[in-house]
Amino acid sequence: MHTYTHQIQYYETDKMQITHHSNYIRFMEEARVDFLNHIGFGYDKMEELGISSPVIGVQCDYKKSTTFPDLITIETGISSYKGTRLEIKYTMKVKNEVVAIGKSLHCFLNPHGRPIILKKALPELDQIFVELLDKDTNDAK
Amino acid sequence: MHTYTHQIQYYETDKMQITHHSNYIRFMEEARVDFLNHIGFGYDKMEELGISSPVIGVQCDYKKSTTFPDLITIETGISSYKGTRLEIKYTMKVKNEVVAIGKSLHCFLNPHGRPIILKKALPELDQIFVELLDKDTNDAK
Amino acid sequence: MHTYTHQIQYYETDKMQITHHSNYIRFMEEARVDFLNHIGFGYDKMEELGISSPVIGVQCDYKKSTTFPDLITIETGISSYKGTRLEIKYTMKVKNEVVAIGKSLHCFLNPHGRPIILKKALPELDQIFVELLDKDTNDAK
Amino acid sequence: MHTYTHQIQYYETDKMQITHHSNYIRFMEEARVDFLNHIGFGYDKMEELGISSPVIGVQCDYKKSTTFPDLITIETGISSYKGTRLEIKYTMKVKNEVVAIGKSLHCFLNPHGRPIILKKALPELDQIFVELLDKDTNDAK
Repeated sequence: MHTYTHQIQYYETDKMQITHHSNYIRFMEEARVDFLNHIGFGYDKMEELGISSPVIGVQCDYKKSTTFPDLITIETGISSYKGTRLEIKYTMKVKNEVVAIGKSLHCFLNPHGRPIILKKALPELDQIFVELLDKDTNDAK
Repeated sequence: MHTYTHQIQYYETDKMQITHHSNYIRFMEEARVDFLNHIGFGYDKMEELGISSPVIGVQCDYKKSTTFPDLITIETGISSYKGTRLEIKYTMKVKNEVVAIGKSLHCFLNPHGRPIILKKALPELDQIFVELLDKDTNDAK
Repeated sequence: MHTYTHQIQYYETDKMQITHHSNYIRFMEEARVDFLNHIGFGYDKMEELGISSPVIGVQCDYKKSTTFPDLITIETGISSYKGTRLEIKYTMKVKNEVVAIGKSLHCFLNPHGRPIILKKALPELDQIFVELLDKDTNDAK
Repeated sequence: MHTYTHQIQYYETDKMQITHHSNYIRFMEEARVDFLNHIGFGYDKMEELGISSPVIGVQCDYKKSTTFPDLITIETGISSYKGTRLEIKYTMKVKNEVVAIGKSLHCFLNPHGRPIILKKALPELDQIFVELLDKDTNDAK
Protein backbone atom coordinates (compact mmCIF):
# COMPACT_ATOMS: atom_id res chain seq x y z
CA MET A 1 0.00 0.00 0.00
CA HIS A 2 1.54 3.28 -1.16
CA THR A 3 1.24 6.29 1.15
CA TYR A 4 1.21 10.02 0.32
CA THR A 5 0.73 12.97 2.66
CA HIS A 6 -1.01 16.27 1.90
CA GLN A 7 -1.13 19.18 4.33
CA ILE A 8 -4.48 20.98 4.22
CA GLN A 9 -3.91 24.57 3.16
CA TYR A 10 -5.81 27.60 4.43
CA TYR A 11 -7.14 28.27 0.91
CA GLU A 12 -8.62 24.76 0.83
CA THR A 13 -11.06 25.50 3.67
CA ASP A 14 -14.51 27.05 3.27
CA LYS A 15 -16.86 29.15 5.38
CA MET A 16 -18.02 26.07 7.28
CA GLN A 17 -14.40 26.20 8.56
CA ILE A 18 -13.62 22.78 7.08
CA THR A 19 -11.81 21.51 3.97
CA HIS A 20 -14.11 22.05 0.98
CA HIS A 21 -15.30 18.67 -0.28
CA SER A 22 -14.17 19.30 -3.88
CA ASN A 23 -10.53 19.45 -2.78
CA TYR A 24 -10.41 15.75 -1.85
CA ILE A 25 -10.72 14.97 -5.59
CA ARG A 26 -7.51 17.02 -6.03
CA PHE A 27 -5.75 15.25 -3.14
CA MET A 28 -6.61 11.98 -4.89
CA GLU A 29 -4.87 13.25 -8.04
CA GLU A 30 -1.78 14.20 -6.02
CA ALA A 31 -1.69 10.73 -4.43
CA ARG A 32 -2.21 9.06 -7.81
CA VAL A 33 0.65 11.00 -9.42
CA ASP A 34 2.91 9.99 -6.54
CA PHE A 35 1.76 6.35 -6.73
CA LEU A 36 2.38 6.11 -10.50
CA ASN A 37 5.84 7.64 -10.03
CA HIS A 38 6.53 5.08 -7.34
CA ILE A 39 5.72 2.10 -9.60
CA GLY A 40 7.90 3.57 -12.36
CA PHE A 41 5.16 4.82 -14.67
CA GLY A 42 4.94 8.48 -13.74
CA TYR A 43 3.49 11.20 -15.88
CA ASP A 44 6.74 11.83 -17.81
CA LYS A 45 7.21 8.16 -18.64
CA MET A 46 3.61 7.75 -19.81
CA GLU A 47 3.83 10.88 -21.95
CA GLU A 48 7.04 9.57 -23.48
CA LEU A 49 5.26 6.29 -24.26
CA GLY A 50 2.40 8.26 -25.79
CA ILE A 51 -0.16 6.83 -23.40
CA SER A 52 -2.63 8.88 -21.41
CA SER A 53 -5.01 7.63 -18.72
CA PRO A 54 -7.85 10.14 -18.33
CA VAL A 55 -10.16 10.11 -15.35
CA ILE A 56 -13.54 8.75 -16.48
CA GLY A 57 -15.15 8.70 -13.05
CA VAL A 58 -14.58 9.70 -9.43
CA GLN A 59 -16.38 9.20 -6.17
CA CYS A 60 -15.71 10.16 -2.59
CA ASP A 61 -17.43 9.34 0.69
CA TYR A 62 -16.80 11.83 3.47
CA LYS A 63 -16.57 10.29 6.95
CA LYS A 64 -15.17 13.10 9.10
CA SER A 65 -14.38 16.72 8.33
CA THR A 66 -10.80 17.98 8.22
CA THR A 67 -9.39 21.49 8.29
CA PHE A 68 -6.24 23.61 8.05
CA PRO A 69 -3.52 22.62 9.01
CA ASP A 70 -4.37 18.89 9.18
CA LEU A 71 -2.04 16.34 7.62
CA ILE A 72 -3.99 13.88 5.48
CA THR A 73 -2.31 10.54 4.83
CA ILE A 74 -3.58 8.87 1.68
CA GLU A 75 -3.18 5.13 1.12
CA THR A 76 -3.45 4.35 -2.58
CA GLY A 77 -4.09 0.92 -4.09
CA ILE A 78 -5.64 -0.85 -7.07
CA SER A 79 -9.25 -1.87 -6.32
CA SER A 80 -10.16 -3.20 -9.77
CA TYR A 81 -8.31 -3.89 -13.03
CA LYS A 82 -9.50 -5.77 -16.10
CA GLY A 83 -7.02 -4.78 -18.81
CA THR A 84 -8.82 -1.72 -20.17
CA ARG A 85 -10.09 -0.04 -17.02
CA LEU A 86 -8.24 0.69 -13.82
CA GLU A 87 -9.93 1.62 -10.55
CA ILE A 88 -7.77 3.22 -7.88
CA LYS A 89 -8.87 3.41 -4.24
CA TYR A 90 -7.79 6.10 -1.79
CA THR A 91 -8.12 5.74 1.97
CA MET A 92 -7.59 9.15 3.55
CA LYS A 93 -6.71 9.39 7.24
CA VAL A 94 -5.92 12.06 9.79
CA LYS A 95 -4.14 10.73 12.89
CA ASN A 96 -5.02 7.14 11.89
CA GLU A 97 -8.73 7.87 11.66
CA VAL A 98 -10.41 7.48 8.26
CA VAL A 99 -11.75 10.85 7.08
CA ALA A 100 -12.68 9.98 3.48
CA ILE A 101 -12.64 7.09 1.02
CA GLY A 102 -12.32 7.86 -2.67
CA LYS A 103 -12.17 6.00 -5.97
CA SER A 104 -11.15 7.01 -9.46
CA LEU A 105 -11.73 5.12 -12.70
CA HIS A 106 -9.35 5.38 -15.65
CA CYS A 107 -9.02 4.07 -19.19
CA PHE A 108 -5.88 4.08 -21.34
CA LEU A 109 -5.58 5.93 -24.63
CA ASN A 110 -3.00 5.91 -27.43
CA PRO A 111 -1.72 9.17 -28.98
CA HIS A 112 -4.76 9.16 -31.32
CA GLY A 113 -7.15 9.11 -28.36
CA ARG A 114 -8.16 5.49 -29.02
CA PRO A 115 -8.65 3.08 -26.09
CA ILE A 116 -5.90 0.49 -25.76
CA ILE A 117 -5.58 -2.89 -24.07
CA LEU A 118 -2.71 -2.48 -21.65
CA LYS A 119 -1.72 -6.15 -21.76
CA LYS A 120 -0.80 -5.76 -25.44
CA ALA A 121 0.39 -2.17 -25.47
CA LEU A 122 2.34 -2.11 -22.24
CA PRO A 123 2.61 -5.62 -20.73
CA GLU A 124 5.07 -4.48 -18.08
CA LEU A 125 2.58 -2.02 -16.59
CA ASP A 126 -0.27 -4.54 -16.99
CA GLN A 127 1.76 -7.00 -14.91
CA ILE A 128 2.34 -4.43 -12.15
CA PHE A 129 -1.38 -3.66 -11.93
CA VAL A 130 -2.28 -7.39 -11.81
CA GLU A 131 0.21 -7.98 -9.00
CA LEU A 132 -0.86 -4.91 -7.04
CA LEU A 133 -4.51 -5.92 -7.40
CA ASP A 134 -3.77 -9.41 -6.01
CA LYS A 135 -1.69 -7.94 -3.23
CA ASP A 136 -4.27 -5.36 -2.20
CA THR A 137 -7.05 -7.94 -2.39
CA ASN A 138 -5.08 -10.28 -0.14
CA ASP A 139 -4.14 -7.47 2.23
CA ALA A 140 -7.83 -6.65 2.58
CA LYS A 141 -8.67 -10.21 3.67
CA MET B 1 -36.24 19.74 -13.73
CA HIS B 2 -34.30 22.83 -12.60
CA THR B 3 -31.61 24.17 -14.92
CA TYR B 4 -28.45 26.17 -14.14
CA THR B 5 -25.72 27.35 -16.50
CA HIS B 6 -21.99 27.66 -15.76
CA GLN B 7 -19.49 29.11 -18.21
CA ILE B 8 -16.17 27.26 -18.10
CA GLN B 9 -13.44 29.69 -17.07
CA TYR B 10 -9.88 29.71 -18.36
CA TYR B 11 -8.58 28.98 -14.85
CA GLU B 12 -10.74 25.84 -14.73
CA THR B 13 -8.81 24.18 -17.57
CA ASP B 14 -5.63 22.10 -17.17
CA LYS B 15 -2.60 21.26 -19.28
CA MET B 16 -4.58 18.58 -21.16
CA GLN B 17 -6.44 21.70 -22.45
CA ILE B 18 -9.74 20.53 -20.95
CA THR B 19 -11.76 21.38 -17.84
CA HIS B 20 -10.04 19.75 -14.84
CA HIS B 21 -12.25 16.92 -13.55
CA SER B 22 -12.31 18.26 -9.96
CA ASN B 23 -14.15 21.39 -11.08
CA TYR B 24 -17.34 19.49 -11.98
CA ILE B 25 -17.81 18.84 -8.24
CA ARG B 26 -17.82 22.64 -7.82
CA PHE B 27 -20.28 23.15 -10.69
CA MET B 28 -22.56 20.67 -8.91
CA GLU B 29 -22.42 22.85 -5.79
CA GLU B 30 -23.29 25.95 -7.84
CA ALA B 31 -26.26 24.15 -9.40
CA ARG B 32 -27.38 22.82 -5.99
CA VAL B 33 -27.27 26.30 -4.41
CA ASP B 34 -29.36 27.63 -7.30
CA PHE B 35 -31.80 24.70 -7.05
CA LEU B 36 -32.33 25.13 -3.29
CA ASN B 37 -32.90 28.86 -3.79
CA HIS B 38 -35.45 28.04 -6.46
CA ILE B 39 -37.50 25.77 -4.17
CA GLY B 40 -37.42 28.43 -1.44
CA PHE B 41 -34.88 26.79 0.88
CA GLY B 42 -31.69 28.58 -0.07
CA TYR B 43 -28.60 28.84 2.06
CA ASP B 44 -29.81 31.94 3.96
CA LYS B 45 -33.17 30.37 4.82
CA MET B 46 -31.56 27.12 6.01
CA GLU B 47 -29.03 29.01 8.12
CA GLU B 48 -31.87 31.03 9.66
CA LEU B 49 -33.67 27.76 10.46
CA GLY B 50 -30.46 26.42 12.00
CA ILE B 51 -30.29 23.48 9.63
CA SER B 52 -27.24 22.48 7.62
CA SER B 53 -27.03 19.78 4.95
CA PRO B 54 -23.39 18.75 4.54
CA VAL B 55 -22.17 16.76 1.58
CA ILE B 56 -21.50 13.19 2.73
CA GLY B 57 -20.68 11.79 -0.70
CA VAL B 58 -20.16 12.78 -4.33
CA GLN B 59 -19.63 10.97 -7.58
CA CYS B 60 -19.20 12.02 -11.16
CA ASP B 61 -18.96 10.11 -14.44
CA TYR B 62 -17.22 11.97 -17.24
CA LYS B 63 -18.66 11.30 -20.70
CA LYS B 64 -17.06 13.97 -22.88
CA SER B 65 -14.42 16.59 -22.16
CA THR B 66 -15.29 20.30 -22.05
CA THR B 67 -13.10 23.38 -22.14
CA PHE B 68 -13.02 27.17 -21.95
CA PRO B 69 -15.32 28.94 -22.93
CA ASP B 70 -18.02 26.18 -23.06
CA LEU B 71 -21.40 26.79 -21.48
CA ILE B 72 -22.42 23.84 -19.31
CA THR B 73 -26.12 23.47 -18.65
CA ILE B 74 -26.83 21.51 -15.47
CA GLU B 75 -30.20 19.84 -14.89
CA THR B 76 -30.69 19.20 -11.19
CA GLY B 77 -33.22 16.84 -9.65
CA ILE B 78 -33.88 14.60 -6.64
CA SER B 79 -32.79 11.02 -7.36
CA SER B 80 -33.42 9.54 -3.90
CA TYR B 81 -34.99 10.75 -0.65
CA LYS B 82 -35.91 8.77 2.44
CA GLY B 83 -36.40 11.39 5.13
CA THR B 84 -32.86 11.53 6.47
CA ARG B 85 -30.76 11.36 3.32
CA LEU B 86 -31.16 13.29 0.10
CA GLU B 87 -29.48 12.36 -3.16
CA ILE B 88 -29.30 15.00 -5.86
CA LYS B 89 -28.55 14.15 -9.50
CA TYR B 90 -26.88 16.49 -11.97
CA THR B 91 -27.02 15.99 -15.73
CA MET B 92 -24.44 18.27 -17.34
CA LYS B 93 -24.73 19.10 -21.02
CA VAL B 94 -22.92 21.20 -23.61
CA LYS B 95 -25.02 21.96 -26.69
CA ASN B 96 -27.55 19.29 -25.67
CA GLU B 97 -24.95 16.56 -25.41
CA VAL B 98 -24.36 14.97 -22.01
CA VAL B 99 -20.79 15.66 -20.85
CA ALA B 100 -21.00 14.43 -17.24
CA ILE B 101 -23.44 12.93 -14.76
CA GLY B 102 -22.96 13.64 -11.07
CA LYS B 103 -24.60 12.79 -7.77
CA SER B 104 -24.27 14.22 -4.29
CA LEU B 105 -25.55 12.74 -1.04
CA HIS B 106 -26.61 14.90 1.91
CA CYS B 107 -27.86 14.50 5.45
CA PHE B 108 -29.54 17.16 7.59
CA LEU B 109 -28.13 18.41 10.89
CA ASN B 110 -29.52 20.61 13.66
CA PRO B 111 -27.46 23.45 15.20
CA HIS B 112 -25.82 20.92 17.54
CA GLY B 113 -24.59 18.85 14.58
CA ARG B 114 -27.09 16.07 15.28
CA PRO B 115 -28.87 14.31 12.37
CA ILE B 116 -32.54 15.25 12.06
CA ILE B 117 -35.56 13.67 10.40
CA LEU B 118 -36.78 16.29 7.96
CA LYS B 119 -40.41 15.15 8.10
CA LYS B 120 -40.53 16.15 11.76
CA ALA B 121 -38.15 19.10 11.75
CA LEU B 122 -39.16 20.75 8.51
CA PRO B 123 -42.29 19.08 7.04
CA GLU B 124 -42.67 21.75 4.36
CA LEU B 125 -39.25 20.96 2.87
CA ASP B 126 -39.84 17.20 3.31
CA GLN B 127 -43.01 17.58 1.24
CA ILE B 128 -41.17 19.44 -1.55
CA PHE B 129 -38.52 16.71 -1.77
CA VAL B 130 -41.16 13.94 -1.85
CA GLU B 131 -43.02 15.71 -4.67
CA LEU B 132 -39.86 16.45 -6.64
CA LEU B 133 -38.76 12.83 -6.26
CA ASP B 134 -42.10 11.57 -7.63
CA LYS B 135 -42.00 14.09 -10.43
CA ASP B 136 -38.44 13.30 -11.47
CA THR B 137 -39.11 9.58 -11.24
CA ASN B 138 -42.15 9.98 -13.48
CA ASP B 139 -40.28 12.25 -15.87
CA ALA B 140 -37.64 9.58 -16.21
CA LYS B 141 -40.20 6.96 -17.27
CA MET C 1 -16.38 51.45 -18.68
CA HIS C 2 -17.19 47.76 -19.22
CA THR C 3 -19.00 45.92 -16.42
CA TYR C 4 -19.00 42.22 -15.51
CA THR C 5 -20.70 40.46 -12.60
CA HIS C 6 -19.44 37.46 -10.65
CA GLN C 7 -21.45 35.72 -7.94
CA ILE C 8 -19.25 34.57 -5.06
CA GLN C 9 -19.50 30.79 -4.76
CA TYR C 10 -19.47 28.82 -1.52
CA TYR C 11 -16.23 27.08 -2.58
CA GLU C 12 -14.56 30.49 -2.97
CA THR C 13 -14.86 31.27 0.76
CA ASP C 14 -12.34 30.25 3.44
CA LYS C 15 -12.40 29.50 7.16
CA MET C 16 -12.37 33.22 7.98
CA GLN C 17 -15.86 33.01 6.38
CA ILE C 18 -14.90 35.45 3.62
CA THR C 19 -13.90 35.14 -0.04
CA HIS C 20 -10.30 33.88 -0.18
CA HIS C 21 -8.06 36.68 -1.45
CA SER C 22 -6.54 34.56 -4.25
CA ASN C 23 -9.93 34.28 -5.95
CA TYR C 24 -10.06 37.97 -6.86
CA ILE C 25 -7.20 37.33 -9.30
CA ARG C 26 -9.52 34.79 -10.97
CA PHE C 27 -12.46 37.22 -11.02
CA MET C 28 -10.14 39.69 -12.78
CA GLU C 29 -9.47 37.07 -15.47
CA GLU C 30 -13.21 36.47 -15.91
CA ALA C 31 -13.82 40.22 -16.28
CA ARG C 32 -10.88 40.55 -18.72
CA VAL C 33 -12.16 37.72 -20.93
CA ASP C 34 -15.59 39.39 -21.01
CA PHE C 35 -14.05 42.81 -21.74
CA LEU C 36 -11.93 41.50 -24.64
CA ASN C 37 -14.98 39.74 -26.09
CA HIS C 38 -16.88 42.98 -25.83
CA ILE C 39 -14.30 44.96 -27.84
CA GLY C 40 -14.23 42.25 -30.50
CA PHE C 41 -10.89 40.66 -29.62
CA GLY C 42 -11.93 37.73 -27.50
CA TYR C 43 -9.86 34.64 -26.86
CA ASP C 44 -10.99 32.82 -30.04
CA LYS C 45 -10.20 35.81 -32.27
CA MET C 46 -6.74 36.31 -30.72
CA GLU C 47 -5.95 32.60 -31.04
CA GLU C 48 -7.02 32.70 -34.69
CA LEU C 49 -4.71 35.69 -35.21
CA GLY C 50 -1.90 33.75 -33.51
CA ILE C 51 -1.45 36.36 -30.80
CA SER C 52 -1.34 35.63 -27.08
CA SER C 53 -1.25 38.18 -24.25
CA PRO C 54 0.12 36.49 -21.14
CA VAL C 55 -0.23 37.99 -17.68
CA ILE C 56 3.18 39.35 -16.63
CA GLY C 57 2.03 40.97 -13.41
CA VAL C 58 -0.99 41.31 -11.12
CA GLN C 59 -1.83 43.28 -8.04
CA CYS C 60 -4.88 43.64 -5.85
CA ASP C 61 -5.74 45.90 -2.92
CA TYR C 62 -8.47 44.58 -0.66
CA LYS C 63 -10.74 47.26 0.80
CA LYS C 64 -13.64 45.29 2.28
CA SER C 65 -14.25 41.57 2.64
CA THR C 66 -16.94 39.81 0.61
CA THR C 67 -18.55 36.41 1.02
CA PHE C 68 -21.01 33.89 -0.45
CA PRO C 69 -23.46 34.74 -2.04
CA ASP C 70 -22.37 38.35 -2.77
CA LEU C 71 -22.60 39.70 -6.30
CA ILE C 72 -19.35 41.46 -7.27
CA THR C 73 -19.61 43.99 -10.08
CA ILE C 74 -16.29 44.52 -11.85
CA GLU C 75 -15.64 47.66 -13.89
CA THR C 76 -12.81 47.02 -16.33
CA GLY C 77 -10.79 49.69 -18.16
CA ILE C 78 -7.39 50.41 -19.67
CA SER C 79 -5.14 52.19 -17.14
CA SER C 80 -1.94 52.26 -19.21
CA TYR C 81 -0.96 51.38 -22.78
CA LYS C 82 2.25 52.10 -24.62
CA GLY C 83 2.18 49.81 -27.64
CA THR C 84 3.90 46.78 -26.13
CA ARG C 85 2.42 46.64 -22.64
CA LEU C 86 -1.19 46.89 -21.60
CA GLU C 87 -2.33 47.52 -18.04
CA ILE C 88 -5.94 46.74 -17.21
CA LYS C 89 -7.63 48.11 -14.08
CA TYR C 90 -10.49 46.41 -12.24
CA THR C 91 -12.73 48.20 -9.77
CA MET C 92 -14.74 45.60 -7.84
CA LYS C 93 -17.89 46.64 -6.01
CA VAL C 94 -20.61 45.05 -3.92
CA LYS C 95 -23.78 47.14 -3.68
CA ASN C 96 -21.91 50.17 -5.06
CA GLU C 97 -19.19 50.00 -2.44
CA VAL C 98 -15.64 49.35 -3.60
CA VAL C 99 -14.37 46.03 -2.17
CA ALA C 100 -11.14 45.63 -4.15
CA ILE C 101 -9.05 47.32 -6.81
CA GLY C 102 -6.89 45.19 -9.08
CA LYS C 103 -4.49 45.62 -11.97
CA SER C 104 -3.02 43.21 -14.48
CA LEU C 105 -0.13 43.81 -16.85
CA HIS C 106 0.12 42.08 -20.23
CA CYS C 107 2.49 41.89 -23.18
CA PHE C 108 1.69 40.56 -26.66
CA LEU C 109 3.43 37.58 -28.25
CA ASN C 110 3.44 36.14 -31.76
CA PRO C 111 3.09 32.36 -32.37
CA HIS C 112 6.86 31.98 -31.81
CA GLY C 113 6.58 33.54 -28.35
CA ARG C 114 8.30 36.75 -29.45
CA PRO C 115 7.05 40.13 -28.18
CA ILE C 116 5.24 42.17 -30.81
CA ILE C 117 4.40 45.85 -31.23
CA LEU C 118 0.64 45.93 -31.50
CA LYS C 119 0.56 49.09 -33.62
CA LYS C 120 2.33 47.20 -36.40
CA ALA C 121 0.94 43.71 -35.89
CA LEU C 122 -2.67 44.57 -35.13
CA PRO C 123 -3.34 48.31 -35.70
CA GLU C 124 -7.09 47.89 -35.26
CA LEU C 125 -6.68 46.59 -31.70
CA ASP C 126 -3.97 49.19 -30.98
CA GLN C 127 -6.47 51.91 -31.96
CA ILE C 128 -9.14 50.49 -29.64
CA PHE C 129 -6.72 50.47 -26.68
CA VAL C 130 -5.59 54.06 -27.42
CA GLU C 131 -9.18 55.27 -27.55
CA LEU C 132 -10.21 53.35 -24.43
CA LEU C 133 -7.19 54.73 -22.57
CA ASP C 134 -8.12 58.32 -23.52
CA LYS C 135 -11.73 57.72 -22.62
CA ASP C 136 -10.97 56.14 -19.26
CA THR C 137 -8.46 58.86 -18.46
CA ASN C 138 -11.04 61.54 -19.26
CA ASP C 139 -13.76 59.71 -17.33
CA ALA C 140 -11.49 59.69 -14.31
CA LYS C 141 -11.08 63.49 -14.38
CA MET D 1 15.95 33.90 4.61
CA HIS D 2 13.31 31.23 5.19
CA THR D 3 12.72 28.69 2.41
CA TYR D 4 9.60 26.69 1.53
CA THR D 5 9.04 24.28 -1.36
CA HIS D 6 5.84 23.70 -3.30
CA GLN D 7 5.45 21.04 -5.99
CA ILE D 8 3.28 22.25 -8.87
CA GLN D 9 0.24 19.99 -9.14
CA TYR D 10 -1.46 18.93 -12.37
CA TYR D 11 -4.66 20.71 -11.30
CA GLU D 12 -2.69 23.96 -10.96
CA THR D 13 -1.90 24.11 -14.69
CA ASP D 14 -4.13 25.66 -17.36
CA LYS D 15 -4.74 25.17 -21.07
CA MET D 16 -1.63 27.21 -21.93
CA GLN D 17 0.09 24.15 -20.31
CA ILE D 18 1.64 26.32 -17.57
CA THR D 19 0.85 27.02 -13.91
CA HIS D 20 -2.17 29.37 -13.80
CA HIS D 21 -1.01 32.77 -12.55
CA SER D 22 -3.61 32.93 -9.73
CA ASN D 23 -2.01 29.94 -8.02
CA TYR D 24 1.19 31.83 -7.15
CA ILE D 25 -0.90 33.92 -4.71
CA ARG D 26 -1.77 30.61 -3.01
CA PHE D 27 1.85 29.45 -2.96
CA MET D 28 2.69 32.74 -1.23
CA GLU D 29 0.13 31.91 1.47
CA GLU D 30 1.66 28.45 1.94
CA ALA D 31 5.14 29.99 2.28
CA ARG D 32 3.84 32.65 4.71
CA VAL D 33 2.15 30.05 6.95
CA ASP D 34 5.40 28.08 7.03
CA PHE D 35 7.45 31.23 7.72
CA LEU D 36 5.21 32.34 10.62
CA ASN D 37 5.38 28.83 12.11
CA HIS D 38 9.14 28.98 11.83
CA ILE D 39 9.43 32.24 13.82
CA GLY D 40 7.11 30.85 16.52
CA PHE D 41 3.96 32.79 15.63
CA GLY D 42 2.05 30.30 13.52
CA TYR D 43 -1.66 30.37 12.89
CA ASP D 44 -2.57 28.47 16.09
CA LYS D 45 -0.49 30.77 18.29
CA MET D 46 -1.95 33.93 16.73
CA GLU D 47 -5.50 32.59 17.08
CA GLU D 48 -4.80 31.78 20.73
CA LEU D 49 -3.55 35.35 21.22
CA GLY D 50 -6.70 36.63 19.50
CA ILE D 51 -4.74 38.41 16.79
CA SER D 52 -5.43 38.09 13.07
CA SER D 53 -3.35 39.51 10.22
CA PRO D 54 -5.53 39.72 7.11
CA VAL D 55 -4.08 40.21 3.65
CA ILE D 56 -4.80 43.79 2.56
CA GLY D 57 -2.83 43.68 -0.67
CA VAL D 58 -0.91 41.31 -2.95
CA GLN D 59 1.19 41.65 -6.05
CA CYS D 60 3.13 39.25 -8.21
CA ASP D 61 5.48 39.73 -11.17
CA TYR D 62 5.84 36.70 -13.40
CA LYS D 63 9.32 36.23 -14.88
CA LYS D 64 9.22 32.72 -16.33
CA SER D 65 6.42 30.18 -16.66
CA THR D 66 6.41 26.98 -14.60
CA THR D 67 4.42 23.78 -14.96
CA PHE D 68 3.64 20.38 -13.46
CA PRO D 69 5.68 18.78 -11.84
CA ASP D 70 8.13 21.65 -11.16
CA LEU D 71 9.42 22.22 -7.64
CA ILE D 72 9.13 25.91 -6.70
CA THR D 73 11.41 27.09 -3.92
CA ILE D 74 10.07 30.18 -2.16
CA GLU D 75 12.36 32.45 -0.15
CA THR D 76 10.30 34.50 2.28
CA GLY D 77 11.46 37.66 4.07
CA ILE D 78 10.25 40.94 5.57
CA SER D 79 10.51 43.76 3.02
CA SER D 80 8.84 46.52 5.07
CA TYR D 81 7.58 46.87 8.64
CA LYS D 82 6.44 49.99 10.46
CA GLY D 83 4.57 48.71 13.51
CA THR D 84 1.09 48.51 12.00
CA ARG D 85 1.76 47.17 8.54
CA LEU D 86 3.91 44.25 7.49
CA GLU D 87 5.06 43.60 3.94
CA ILE D 88 6.35 40.14 3.12
CA LYS D 89 8.40 39.42 0.00
CA TYR D 90 8.50 36.09 -1.81
CA THR D 91 11.24 35.15 -4.29
CA MET D 92 10.11 32.05 -6.19
CA LYS D 93 12.69 29.94 -8.01
CA VAL D 94 12.81 26.77 -10.07
CA LYS D 95 16.30 25.24 -10.33
CA ASN D 96 17.83 28.46 -8.96
CA GLU D 97 16.22 30.64 -11.62
CA VAL D 98 13.74 33.29 -10.47
CA VAL D 99 10.26 32.54 -11.88
CA ALA D 100 8.18 35.05 -9.92
CA ILE D 101 8.48 37.74 -7.26
CA GLY D 102 5.53 38.43 -4.99
CA LYS D 103 4.61 40.70 -2.11
CA SER D 104 1.79 40.65 0.42
CA LEU D 105 0.74 43.44 2.77
CA HIS D 106 -0.83 42.74 6.17
CA CYS D 107 -2.26 44.66 9.09
CA PHE D 108 -2.93 43.29 12.59
CA LEU D 109 -6.37 43.15 14.20
CA ASN D 110 -7.58 42.43 17.73
CA PRO D 111 -10.55 40.08 18.37
CA HIS D 112 -12.92 43.03 17.79
CA GLY D 113 -11.48 43.61 14.32
CA ARG D 114 -9.71 46.82 15.38
CA PRO D 115 -6.19 47.57 14.09
CA ILE D 116 -3.50 47.18 16.72
CA ILE D 117 0.04 48.47 17.11
CA LEU D 118 2.15 45.34 17.38
CA LYS D 119 4.86 47.02 19.49
CA LYS D 120 2.31 47.50 22.29
CA ALA D 121 0.14 44.44 21.80
CA LEU D 122 2.81 41.87 21.04
CA PRO D 123 6.33 43.34 21.60
CA GLU D 124 7.99 39.95 21.18
CA LEU D 125 6.67 39.56 17.61
CA ASP D 126 7.39 43.24 16.87
CA GLN D 127 11.02 42.62 17.84
CA ILE D 128 11.27 39.59 15.55
CA PHE D 129 9.95 41.58 12.57
CA VAL D 130 12.34 44.49 13.27
CA GLU D 131 15.31 42.11 13.41
CA LEU D 132 14.26 40.20 10.31
CA LEU D 133 13.76 43.47 8.42
CA ASP D 134 17.29 44.63 9.37
CA LYS D 135 18.71 41.27 8.49
CA ASP D 136 16.98 41.01 5.12
CA THR D 137 17.91 44.60 4.31
CA ASN D 138 21.56 43.88 5.11
CA ASP D 139 21.47 40.58 3.21
CA ALA D 140 20.23 42.46 0.18
CA LYS D 141 23.21 44.85 0.21
